[in-house]
Parts: sequence; structure tokens; C-alpha cells
Amino acid sequence: MVEDSVNSSDLKQTVGYYLYDCLSKEGITEILGVPGDYNFSLLDILEKYEGINFINCHNELNAGYAADAYARVKGISALITTFGVGELSACNAIAGSYSESVPVIHIVGGPKTKDQQAHKQMYHSLLNGDFDVFRKVYEHLTEYTATITPENAAFEIKAAIQKAKETKKPVYLLIATDIANQPIINRDVNLTIKQTNQSSLQAAIQHIDKIINQAQRPVLISGVYVSRYNLQPQVQQLVDKMNLPVATMMMGKGSFDESHKNFIGLYAGDLGSKEVQNIVEASDCILAIGTMWSDYNTGSFTAKLNPLNIIELQPDSVKIGMAAYENILIQDMLNELLTRINKRMTNVPTAPSPYVDVNISLEEDVSSKYYYPRFQKMLKENDILIADAGTFEFGIAQLKLPKGATYITQGGWGSIGYGTPAAFGACIAAKNRRVLLFVGDGSNQMTVQEFSSMLHNNCKPIIFLVNNKEYTIEKYLNVSQKNTHYNDLPLWDYSKLITAFGGDSYTAKVYTNKELDEAIKKAEVQCNERLCLIEIYAPKMDAPPIVHKMTKMLEQMQK
Amino acid sequence: MVEDSVNSSDLKQTVGYYLYDCLSKEGITEILGVPGDYNFSLLDILEKYEGINFINCHNELNAGYAADAYARVKGISALITTFGVGELSACNAIAGSYSESVPVIHIVGGPKTKDQQAHKQMYHSLLNGDFDVFRKVYEHLTEYTATITPENAAFEIKAAIQKAKETKKPVYLLIATDIANQPIINRDVNLTIKQTNQSSLQAAIQHIDKIINQAQRPVLISGVYVSRYNLQPQVQQLVDKMNLPVATMMMGKGSFDESHKNFIGLYAGDLGSKEVQNIVEASDCILAIGTMWSDYNTGSFTAKLNPLNIIELQPDSVKIGMAAYENILIQDMLNELLTRINKRMTNVPTAPSPYVDVNISLEEDVSSKYYYPRFQKMLKENDILIADAGTFEFGIAQLKLPKGATYITQGGWGSIGYGTPAAFGACIAAKNRRVLLFVGDGSNQMTVQEFSSMLHNNCKPIIFLVNNKEYTIEKYLNVSQKNTHYNDLPLWDYSKLITAFGGDSYTAKVYTNKELDEAIKKAEVQCNERLCLIEIYAPKMDAPPIVHKMTKMLEQMQK
Repeated sequence: MVEDSVNSSDLKQTVGYYLYDCLSKEGITEILGVPGDYNFSLLDILEKYEGINFINCHNELNAGYAADAYARVKGISALITTFGVGELSACNAIAGSYSESVPVIHIVGGPKTKDQQAHKQMYHSLLNGDFDVFRKVYEHLTEYTATITPENAAFEIKAAIQKAKETKKPVYLLIATDIANQPIINRDVNLTIKQTNQSSLQAAIQHIDKIINQAQRPVLISGVYVSRYNLQPQVQQLVDKMNLPVATMMMGKGSFDESHKNFIGLYAGDLGSKEVQNIVEASDCILAIGTMWSDYNTGSFTAKLNPLNIIELQPDSVKIGMAAYENILIQDMLNELLTRINKRMTNVPTAPSPYVDVNISLEEDVSSKYYYPRFQKMLKENDILIADAGTFEFGIAQLKLPKGATYITQGGWGSIGYGTPAAFGACIAAKNRRVLLFVGDGSNQMTVQEFSSMLHNNCKPIIFLVNNKEYTIEKYLNVSQKNTHYNDLPLWDYSKLITAFGGDSYTAKVYTNKELDEAIKKAEVQCNERLCLIEIYAPKMDAPPIVHKMTKMLEQMQK
Repeated sequence: MVEDSVNSSDLKQTVGYYLYDCLSKEGITEILGVPGDYNFSLLDILEKYEGINFINCHNELNAGYAADAYARVKGISALITTFGVGELSACNAIAGSYSESVPVIHIVGGPKTKDQQAHKQMYHSLLNGDFDVFRKVYEHLTEYTATITPENAAFEIKAAIQKAKETKKPVYLLIATDIANQPIINRDVNLTIKQTNQSSLQAAIQHIDKIINQAQRPVLISGVYVSRYNLQPQVQQLVDKMNLPVATMMMGKGSFDESHKNFIGLYAGDLGSKEVQNIVEASDCILAIGTMWSDYNTGSFTAKLNPLNIIELQPDSVKIGMAAYENILIQDMLNELLTRINKRMTNVPTAPSPYVDVNISLEEDVSSKYYYPRFQKMLKENDILIADAGTFEFGIAQLKLPKGATYITQGGWGSIGYGTPAAFGACIAAKNRRVLLFVGDGSNQMTVQEFSSMLHNNCKPIIFLVNNKEYTIEKYLNVSQKNTHYNDLPLWDYSKLITAFGGDSYTAKVYTNKELDEAIKKAEVQCNERLCLIEIYAPKMDAPPIVHKMTKMLEQMQK
């Protein structure tokens, strides 16, 4: 991977080089992060390593968000931060990756081993001599943590990556600045790989077979783990074979091809479309593949599904009604289903798309009534759509995705500000795909500096930014107190901001539907050359019907 | 505190109201933070509470930094964030407050009690039913944590505040959204307040008396805890009484009046001025009051002090040579010293200030050779100076502060990006004092959105921003690899940025010493009306002599 030079054989023996080789084998070609002197040795090796580039973000939270999105696009990602100050700034992003099952390898450069062992009062520490405390913090937020030494490096690095791949959760590696440059001492690695219990699998498949054969109105729900474990092809084969209607839930959006004839839409309990709800809730056999039953997925727990009718494939278990079968890997279960199930339905129910091209005057002030159908019209195959927390997280979820599209949002964890850095991460992960970011001013103001990272790295997303001086979603969420002052925001001029950050861009401010239409047409051309930002001056409290529905639901619950 | 209205008696009984009453009694008149729906009930009560205003920051890390600076100015502060996403974004700031002993009350709004008890998969959680995990994270980063109920509210709120005041460390309170509105059930509070052990105190004072009486060249070092425990008046009385030379260390800067005739300057081992080093290291009796012996304070442990010659007053102990006396509160020890010590020195050695008005042509390109002496000239009584991590953290530390000035930096913890939000927090804490922020582009780009908060809140700091497209300090810190690409930065146009954020400002870009001189003169007038930003286009690697000295030291250590 590295050109043969005088020092390269020494370099290749180092812990740092080994680490990058392992990451490279997973398909990682960029590592996101922020420099800080405790990680200089790691970065110095990385600058010499061919095959992986270091991509600077503007702070560690943003880098964590970007790494999360990178992993959603490419399957796995890595993040480098510095000890204490750096790694702790990324806590929220890593916890989000944990919550939403995104495998991020978080690598932290630490103080010199001898300073740690002497419990010195070093900067970036709590000044109490404890250098293990931040790893302990990360024990709560990751699946695996390790402090690397030359003796354990080969094992721990491989074990951490394996754990991330198996569980789709983030993992944490602390590498002291002197360790990165040291040669690996022990290269023996004997990892135990998790495997399916065949008896369990056979029992489960027999149980499923019986239930599916009796089912009159089976439905498949494709969930978040279908995307995470790259099971889209198998799920589609199963659907094609059985001719089942398919719904997705919020977090599973994009896990099934929405242009497929069997796709019926988004199921979200009382919150989603009535038609989809009727089909799913009337089903006598729900094949739930890789779903999570969280509030965001179930319309705040308004999903009315009989647990006895659910066959649930989880990453390493299967639940059929009240029976649980443990130690069955989801990919093995799906393959078994494909071989063994022979039932085929004759009719597939259908449901309409929410955003039909309604008849709205182009002269009207711009609002969500127009822009959602307009966004629907502009989507292309293989687009990456990113919706930040806020009204977009609900509105964009109802767009019908074209073939090959990737949909990224963080509704399970729901950290406002995720979208802008995530769009940067997606641009880095997929340089030849079009990236569309939908973001509100409240979200964007939290993490705006990644606009600069995009410009600096020649990224060319199309950004739709609703500029209406408030955290709109928060106002909808506060059902006990209206017009709260604390949810107001200062008005920024984003087009000017983009210019202040430098770099090449196309920007437009739109006040009417017509202006939005024209700006989109221009951006569709301009995005081949430069970053595009369309500021939508929507009215206050502008939101799609699904958000109004949610508020009504919350009001009802409050009573 | 609240006007008598129909609901006010109910309101006054609530947990939220009680909390604000306790904070108000500590002198807190603003709480910094970011709204999020789990803290709406807390914020709704705060909107009705008279005497404390809620101040929005742009994200939780920035809010944490601002709260830290607020506490450095006013003695204590409070921060409100939301569960999971919000609180974790503030981890780095709170850990910084822990590291540097700054009492911040971190209040987190949590999900409804019944949802927590049912272990529901709620947004802003890890989706694993564990709602105690973030409090556990904060156990590592704070002195005290509690989950508030109506039954324990009175006790736990008072206990947490008391602990913060005693230890000067941050504390953490988790308040579920439904709890804030509930009436307090049990108001009995019986707190144990930490007290000095009188026998220990008497033994220590006798020991000290003996040593001081024998001392020929006593020196006093005023440390960070002198500021934290507000002991400046006592320390000054002691100095006046004994006629001792006084040095400060990096983190203790500002703890002693630098215009006082006995002040000799900054002691930082080999890193500080030779003259101060000679005086301190030749002393046969160092009265170290509230010092920390961290790398930042000791010039990377180059301080050559004989431990047998040190009398060390710590927050709750005294160390004299090798003897330790426990359970002596620093304020009691100081008062005792003032009463009992009668020695008075006749001569006080002196040392020159580093920034004398050197003879530099105004026509030259602007550089640190000119700007540090120029900053020195512009300082006024009661200024608040904030130096962000980077070269300023070293260069500004050598300015001689005028009477009543407050100096804020975060060199112990050393989180780049601290300065800009800290300046915002200082402006909020001290509306009638002049705030000067010294920040590099690398630092500022991490947390730039608080410029917007300043503008929105009509703050009028004078901001000096060195714009040289790199993390200069990081390049000086990497002694094994020069000209690393990863420490480069995009060039921003900060004057344009300020305009994009809206609000009233005076901005200037300076390229020569003369332009800087003129811009300062203008800013000195303009800052009565509006925020002032002076962008200094310094050359790459521009840094004061102390930074060059540090690099040489690091290179030496590397060998």
C-alpha cells in the first residue's frame, strides 16, 4: 500500500500502519477527524499511507456525524480524534451511531505511555492522573473499547473491527502517541466469529413455514438492519418470490427499493398514511425484517400490531409470536427463508404516494405545500438524500425514493445539527453520487462550519435550507406552551455565509414557488461544477401535514 | 421572585421553581443552554421566573464553554441541555470545567418518568431501554450527579450546589420533563458542610511559622484556586503584610493584582522569563497558594523547585515540605496566616515585563512582534481578557494585567475552540465590563456560531482574530514532522461572516502594524456601541518568543 522507500519497511511494521491496513481492507478510503498533538503520530503515518486520505472536519462532533454518514454509505467508517478534548466532543455523534447501529471505528490518540504511567498532570486530562477515564466514558457509548499496546495491537484492532461489523455498533481504540510508531510485537490473531446455531435456525424455519402457509394477508416490513447488514438483495428476492406488499418504517426507509411494484409506503402507526396503516394493521402475518420498535418508528407507539402475528428477524435472533429463537444471524435466516419458503401471493394491495403533483400556483409564497412535491419531482436514481432533525425528518421521509437512492436521517437518536456534517460525510464517501441535503436553520446553525469543509473539499451537494428564524419542530413539539421565545433564532444570510467561507458555489434565495422551481432547475445544472445552496424563506411554522398530525397526537396524549 | 398571579403559588411549589430559587440565591442571573423538548418544562418555568434569563447558545458544547466562562467571572453558573443528544455534546466543556475546577451546575431535562420506567425505546436514548447511562457518563466527569424526584429534589439540588461550591467542580442534575412541574414533597434539607479540623490547622500554622521565620528569600506563588475561592483580598493582605515578591503560574494568572508593586511576573519553569525563574527557583521558602503543578503551569515540568522548600495551601489540605495536614480549608488557613505570621521582608526583587514598547516600524507587515506590545498598551482597568488555546494562550499570558482585570484561558484542559463561546459567556456575565477576545482562526472555526449569539444579544467585545490559514500552535507542537498538511485551514472572510450573521458590528482587516494601531483606536470608541472584530492577517507561523522557546524545549525532550 505504501511506495517502497528507505523507511517504508520500518513503517509497515508499526501499529499505525497495521491499523490502516485493517481499515483499508474494509473498504475505508478516507478517515474523518480533527488533528490534535496527541494524534500527530497517527496522522503522520496516515499521510505516508497510500489508500486512505485524512479528511479534516471543523470540530470533532461534526467529524463524528460525518463519519456516521460515511458508514451509512460505505458500510463502515473511521474517525480520528485527540485525547480528552477531542474525543469527548464526539460523544454525542458516537452515541448516535450506537443508538442507530452504525459501525464507526473511533480512534483516539493519547498522551505518551510513560506520562500516563507516571500519572502526570497533563493537558487534555482531568489533571487528576487518571488516563483511563475517557475510555470508561466510551464503555457506555460503544460496543467495544481497547487501549492499544504493541503486544495486543494485532488482536485488539482486529477484534474491535470484527465487533463493529458483527453488531453494527461503534467501537473505540485508544492509541498513545508513542505506540502508533512502535513495531507490532505479536501478530497472532485468533478471533472467535459469531455463528448461527443450526438447530435454532431449523426450529425457527419450521415454525415460520407453518405460519406463513396459513397466512391470508402477509406483509413485509423492511427495517433499519436490512440496510445495515446489506440485506437489500435478499429481501428483494424474498419479496419477488413471495409477491408480498412491502412497507418500511422511518429508520428503515431506503432499505427497500421504493420504485418496486410491491412497495406500499411508510408505516408509522397513526402518524403515517391511512392506507399503509390499514394494510399493515389488517395483516395476519407481518414479516418484520430488521425492524426497531422505537417511538420514531411506531408513530410514538401508536402502531397497533398484534405481537402474535409478527415474525421478527433481528440481527442475531428470531421472534415468532411469543417464541424466541436465539443465535441466528439475520443473513443466515434470510438465506434459509429464500430456500425454504414457497408460498406466493396473487394480489398485492397498493397505496398512493403522499406527494402527488398538486395544483399550486407558482406565484404563491413558497411553502411546504409546494416544495415537497417539487422535491419529489427532482429526485434521480442513486441520489443520496439527507434530512436533518426537524420538520424535514418527517416530511422528506414521505418522498418516494428512486431506485438506488440512499436515505440518511438520524430520527432514532434525533440530534439536531446532524444533517450538515452528514452531508459532508456522504459527499466524501460517494464522490460520484448526487447528494441532496434538506436542513432547517435551527439544525444548520449548530454545525454550519461543515459548509466550509464541503467547499474546501470541492463537494457539490444541493442544499435546501429553510430559513424561518425558529426551531419549527420544537414549537410543534411543545404542546403545553405556544410561541416560546427560546425556540426563536437569529436570521442569517446563508448565501453571504457561503461566500465568507470561500470556495465556489451557486446560491439562491427563494420567496415564491416559482423562484424555487427556477433555482432547482439551475442547481440541477450547477451541481456538476459547484456546491449549490437554495435558501427557502418559508413562513414561520411551515410544516408538512405529517407534523400537524404529530402535534395533534401529542396533544391527545397530553390529555 | 415571581409576580403574584393566579397560578404563581402553584408554580412556586414546583421542583423547577425551587431549583431556580436556589440558583438565584447563588447570584446566577442567566442560565445558558439550548432548548430541546425534554427540557421544555424547565424552560417554560424559567420564562415565568423573574430574576434569571435563559440565554440561547448555538449548540451545547458552546453553551458549556460559555457557562464555564460565566462561572469564572461570577463564581458559579448553570447550563440547561436536553437528554442524550444535548448533554453529550457538552461533555468536553464539562470535563474542562472539572479539569480546571470551575463550578457549573449542569441541568438536563429527561424523558417522562413513566417512559423511563417502562424502558421504552425513546428518541435521544440508546434505544436499549437504559435511561441512566448518560448520568453514568457524567459520574466520570463531574463531582456529583443526581436524578431528581419530587421527594429528593430539595435535598439533591442543595447538595449538588453545595458540592459545586465546596469543590469548585461541575455537578449534574437530571430532571425528567414531568418532574419539573411537580410540587416538591419533602423540603427538609440537612446538609453536612465541610469544615476545617482545628487541630490540624494549629499544627500546620506552627509548622509554617517556624519555616517562614527562618526563610531568607521567601516568594509567594498565587495559583488558580486563589481565583476560584475568591481569595484575592486575603492573598493581597498577606503580601502587603509580609512584603513578599509574588509570581503567578499560567492557570493562576489574574489571581494577583499585576499592577501591585510586589508582582514579579509569570513563573513557568524554563518557559517563562529568566528573571522570574531566577527569583522563584532561588527561593528558600515558596508559599504556593492554590497552585496546580500541571504541565501547562510548570513549563512541561521544567520547574526546578525543591519540594522541601514549598509550603503548599490546597483547597482542603496543607503540605509543608514532606508533611501533609489534611482537612484544612484554604480560606481558614489563609485567615490564620494573616493573623499569626508577623515576618516582614525589607527588599522585594523585581523583574521586567516581557512586552516593552519596542521600536518597530508601523509600516511593517503586522506580526506578533508588534501586536503583543500594542495589546499591552490598550489594556484598561477591569477588562476581561480571553485567550483561546493556541499561540495566544502563551503570548497573552505574558501581558501585564491592569488592576481589576480578569484573565480567562483554558490551558490546563486546553480545548481549542473554547475562546469564542467563553467570550460570549463573559459578556453575559459582566454586561458593563470590556471583553477582549484573542483567538486564532483554527480555534474560532470550531465554535464560530457564538459570534452570532454575541450579535443577537447585543454583546460588544473587541475580538482580535489572527487569520493565517493554519493551526499555528499545532505546527509548533509537532516537532517530528514539519509542514503537515493536516494542520492547514481554509481561509475565511470573517468580516463578511459577521455581516452574514446579522447585527451591528465594526470590522477591520489589518495587514500592517499601522493598520492594527488605527483599528484598535477605532475599536476603542466603537466598542461602546457594537461588537468589534479585527482580523489580523499575520504571516504563517507567526508566534511570540515563548512559543519558539517551547518548541526548542520539546525538541530537546524528544532527543
